[in-house]
Amino acid sequence: MSEKKKIAVVLSGSGVYDGSEIHETTLTMLAIARQGASYELFAPNVDQAHVINHLTGEEMSETRNVLVESARIARGKIADLKTYEASQFDALVFPGGFGAAKNLCTFAFDGPNCTVNEDVEEAIRQTVAANKPIGALCIAPAVITRILKDVEVTIGNDSGTAGAIEKMGGTHTNATHGEVVFDPKYNIYTTPCYMLDATIDQIADGAENIIQAILKSL
Amino acid sequence: MSEKKKIAVVLSGSGVYDGSEIHETTLTMLAIARQGASYELFAPNVDQAHVINHLTGEEMSETRNVLVESARIARGKIADLKTYEASQFDALVFPGGFGAAKNLCTFAFDGPNCTVNEDVEEAIRQTVAANKPIGALCIAPAVITRILKDVEVTIGNDSGTAGAIEKMGGTHTNATHGEVVFDPKYNIYTTPCYMLDATIDQIADGAENIIQAILKSL
Repeated sequence: MSEKKKIAVVLSGSGVYDGSEIHETTLTMLAIARQGASYELFAPNVDQAHVINHLTGEEMSETRNVLVESARIARGKIADLKTYEASQFDALVFPGGFGAAKNLCTFAFDGPNCTVNEDVEEAIRQTVAANKPIGALCIAPAVITRILKDVEVTIGNDSGTAGAIEKMGGTHTNATHGEVVFDPKYNIYTTPCYMLDATIDQIADGAENIIQAILKSL
Repeated sequence: MSEKKKIAVVLSGSGVYDGSEIHETTLTMLAIARQGASYELFAPNVDQAHVINHLTGEEMSETRNVLVESARIARGKIADLKTYEASQFDALVFPGGFGAAKNLCTFAFDGPNCTVNEDVEEAIRQTVAANKPIGALCIAPAVITRILKDVEVTIGNDSGTAGAIEKMGGTHTNATHGEVVFDPKYNIYTTPCYMLDATIDQIADGAENIIQAILKSL
């Protein structure tokens, strides 16, 4: 019937504490493939804010590049976010992980006064201008809110983060495992994933539900 | 009815070219959770054979630790493989990725004459001695074959790798997407995953099928 829908997915490294959350990213890709759409992966070509030893939680004295590390999840098939064009895709999706709040913007360090990577901002603005849907999992709605301001999103039920969302001009709605919050004004879909204490099958549910909601709208 | 089954999963880093294949690992964990069992993650505490830039495919002049990098997929919840005890688990599973052939053993460099990490060898021997099932995805059957020798496995249909399996004493059976080969002598389950040119949903099928076969046998 209709042509295969194509979704751009924006990564922020590889590993929950300094990059993309690996399960959220993998299960977003799986949800897109299982629902008959295709994906292309992007990441900004910048250094990570820092590198975290995921065994100890401590900072390591290393430098890693967001695009290069994201390529681990992508099996090498990933492009510089600078080359993203909204006209070539049906939707844009941001998985979570601290990378979204450390490398795509500085929310993890600066809270509501954070700055956003310019390629991330451009991708969001282009996609909204084209009236195409954007999905954001976990902490990634913070990036969207910093750019769009008066948008309704969920990051689960953490009151501190929800307060910071409201300070940036957003409206925060509590949500639980697998629930998707929709903002009709900007065409934004959000779901909490690991912003809640979740199991991997609950992450799969969240990824499936947000991708289903986005594909249904197209 | 019966108690929840517990599966140990052995990682070898984080990223297909020098560690665990991320999709295979994540989707193995998802398959275990969705089928009502639980998992614990392990990796050897050794340096990686090398570090590959996953964007360019070239070697990087860095040193990374297998356990520390595996912790990225594990979200920090992972133990040194040295602490694995077969008596505490119902089954043992090895996802693939070049890490299985570079860090768990030296198959990627030395072919059929490869050596196997001593903690990996001990884990396999203990599990076989306890007559508990072992699963291996993708290239990981090479590790199993190097230890057990006269075992029947699949790594898909790559003739070079299949030849090396036979040189180590194994019997290779071709298999396609999602198929599981069972060796009744040693209680070994294998499936090809990314040893075939596969999509992420085919990897999910393979992981689901091998976990289902293992759980059914318990």
